[in-house]
Amino acid sequence: MGLVVQKYGGSSVADAERIKRVAERIVATRKAGNDVVVVVSAMGDTTDELLDLAKQVAILPPPRELDMLLTSGERISMALLAMAVANLGLQARSFTGSQAGVVTDSTHGRARIIDVTPGRIRSALDEGSVAIVAGFQGVSQDTKDITTLGRGGSDTTAVALAAALGADICEIYTDVDGVFTADPRIVPTARKIQKIAYEEMLELAASGAKILHLRCVEYARRSNMPIHVRSSFSQHEGTYVTRITPEEAVEQPIIAGVAHDVSEAKITVVGVPDKPGEAAAIFRVLADAEINLDMIVQNVSAASTGRTDISFTVPIADGQTALTALAKAKASIGFDSTLYDEHVGKVSLVGAGMKSHPGVSAQFFEALAEAGVNVEVISTSEIRISVVCRDSDVPAAVRALHTKFDLDIDPDDDAAAVVYGGTGR
Amino acid sequence: MGLVVQKYGGSSVADAERIKRVAERIVATRKAGNDVVVVVSAMGDTTDELLDLAKQVAILPPPRELDMLLTSGERISMALLAMAVANLGLQARSFTGSQAGVVTDSTHGRARIIDVTPGRIRSALDEGSVAIVAGFQGVSQDTKDITTLGRGGSDTTAVALAAALGADICEIYTDVDGVFTADPRIVPTARKIQKIAYEEMLELAASGAKILHLRCVEYARRSNMPIHVRSSFSQHEGTYVTRITPEEAVEQPIIAGVAHDVSEAKITVVGVPDKPGEAAAIFRVLADAEINLDMIVQNVSAASTGRTDISFTVPIADGQTALTALAKAKASIGFDSTLYDEHVGKVSLVGAGMKSHPGVSAQFFEALAEAGVNVEVISTSEIRISVVCRDSDVPAAVRALHTKFDLDIDPDDDAAAVVYGGTGR
Repeated sequence: MGLVVQKYGGSSVADAERIKRVAERIVATRKAGNDVVVVVSAMGDTTDELLDLAKQVAILPPPRELDMLLTSGERISMALLAMAVANLGLQARSFTGSQAGVVTDSTHGRARIIDVTPGRIRSALDEGSVAIVAGFQGVSQDTKDITTLGRGGSDTTAVALAAALGADICEIYTDVDGVFTADPRIVPTARKIQKIAYEEMLELAASGAKILHLRCVEYARRSNMPIHVRSSFSQHEGTYVTRITPEEAVEQPIIAGVAHDVSEAKITVVGVPDKPGEAAAIFRVLADAEINLDMIVQNVSAASTGRTDISFTVPIADGQTALTALAKAKASIGFDSTLYDEHVGKVSLVGAGMKSHPGVSAQFFEALAEAGVNVEVISTSEIRISVVCRDSDVPAAVRALHTKFDLDIDPDDDAAAVVYGGTGR
Repeated sequence: MGLVVQKYGGSSVADAERIKRVAERIVATRKAGNDVVVVVSAMGDTTDELLDLAKQVAILPPPRELDMLLTSGERISMALLAMAVANLGLQARSFTGSQAGVVTDSTHGRARIIDVTPGRIRSALDEGSVAIVAGFQGVSQDTKDITTLGRGGSDTTAVALAAALGADICEIYTDVDGVFTADPRIVPTARKIQKIAYEEMLELAASGAKILHLRCVEYARRSNMPIHVRSSFSQHEGTYVTRITPEEAVEQPIIAGVAHDVSEAKITVVGVPDKPGEAAAIFRVLADAEINLDMIVQNVSAASTGRTDISFTVPIADGQTALTALAKAKASIGFDSTLYDEHVGKVSLVGAGMKSHPGVSAQFFEALAEAGVNVEVISTSEIRISVVCRDSDVPAAVRALHTKFDLDIDPDDDAAAVVYGGTGR
């Protein structure tokens, strides 16, 4: 007998049939003797359809009203899911983010959870009900207005509720079998990871792995809430994201996996005067434009000119904004020009074992060299090495690293092949 | 400078274009110097679509969850309308029924308003915003669950909020120009009524006039809140539903209008033993089946048999339920048989002036006789005379009464013809 929080995404509840399937899984979990709290996203494309309506009536919809509009999506899915569970003979009660006690700041569109007071959820559990909670939404502490949490918001809701309720596990259901050592669409021999440390998952998420949002993993790490990422379309065990003790770490593989990301562009600011404060001025301009920089590199100054080049990557979606902001500041900063390149990709190797295995970097660059991949930018953390290369080189780079670090599934391992093969992504 | 509450129904906000048109009307009212509170229904067919989804996932959706589901409809329309108003340069804030302080009992699906505490609405008005409120919904005082008010719920929300805020007028926007002396589809010479007493409007609504729901008029009468029923597609003045003082009453026409209703069926219980308690037993059976009886008539008992017949009308939708309930009780009550007839219609003449004009009844039956209409059941109140006849006779009966009581529009009255003619219903 435990307390399980389950989160189902939009594709898991996209239509009436899928909602009924999810209801069956919830009932099975309850009948296995667990208390169950479910966090649910809006059905399929509901959010996009609502956004489209908003654009039809207003050029710049006020963020407060946009949040009011979008949160109706989860209201629909959670009520339907509660009905479907009740139809199978269990008591079920749905709760909005506000009713569930998800208290946030007032930043509409990307509010942060500042408190969770799940009194009504606990009462529902105490009376034997399954509690079904709207993901992605909360209520502002100051204004009592409805807020949304932004990207990955439903996952974060689930982890936050699990932490506040002291759940045994937070299960995040998705359309893949778990976290893989690489994207199986690029590396068919990728393995499903059975257990991964929060820190590794954070680095993978930050490096382009789409399966869990950074914010949700960060929340789980801080509250030490284990996450079980698994498929809503199968009964297989997925991937546990959890704290790994130093004793356990010895048993863990040195490398967790390889991530890649082709959603960024590289901007180079050419001919920046090589004197203190110049780089800071450039980054201030970009910060004021609310652009998140990722990898940054500065070349050694050419002695003859006293000028240097600064390169960094930004999300492609922010590319034009960044260039415009830089163009405006060109005269005051005094650089020569900017170069913009969308045909770049980022490849990252992540593993907590790197810390104690000094040979990893050497192997990393050997693998890329052997695959003929030219490295343009390098960045590292304690447990990650990332490079920027041509986007067309990304698949070869990912495969080369995956093989070099012995991550490929053993072709003779039949049991594993049944579980991990074929399902793909 | 006044406070105006406006209510827009689902057809007035059925798509983005109509929402923008409603927004323009709201802005015009605000710019004319009024504070404006808007109550809005769900867009077009949203409610039906949500009900359809509910039926797909559950045979008997729990009423609490059904209310949670359906209330998302107004959440969408109110947020979009607030965006559209903001897009025209005014501040607008949307509020759920709960946020607006609409407190109800816990009867999901047909909750009754027991209190209105519009503190947040008043704050929004004080800061210069237009307040946009979800119709049809509230929050239960006891359980804090979301409730819906049932049929006519948005009109009732508007009147209740107007009363609680001490508004100057509650404007109910619809797709017709106001309340007419008869259905213009049957009587092309029907006049738009400029001013009608609450009591008359109640009788018209109860007699089949669809334009305002009984409950909303009753709430307005109790709180003495004037209603202005008007078209959202034109700028014409509509009909004021209001208190009429004895002094004003002298100026009012004797007859307000003619209503008809073909949505009822007539049931006759044949051969009921003519002794005390028999009729009561029949009506108890029907009350237990939650059937609303309308017109009831009992024939004089035939001395030879000691038995009598009892006839009454019920909504056609309840017909089968009523017959089943009666069949079950046939042995215990001891009647002979039941007759069921859907081809009946009800025609009613309503007017506060009847009280002081004793000739009305005579004229009423003369008109029907002249039109060759056979009367099957008669029922009267202080300000209404109703009869049941063949449904095929209804148009002739309505036209005969309309002409007999001088309600036809004057064909020479050009100004009136421009305003009232042609628009139909």
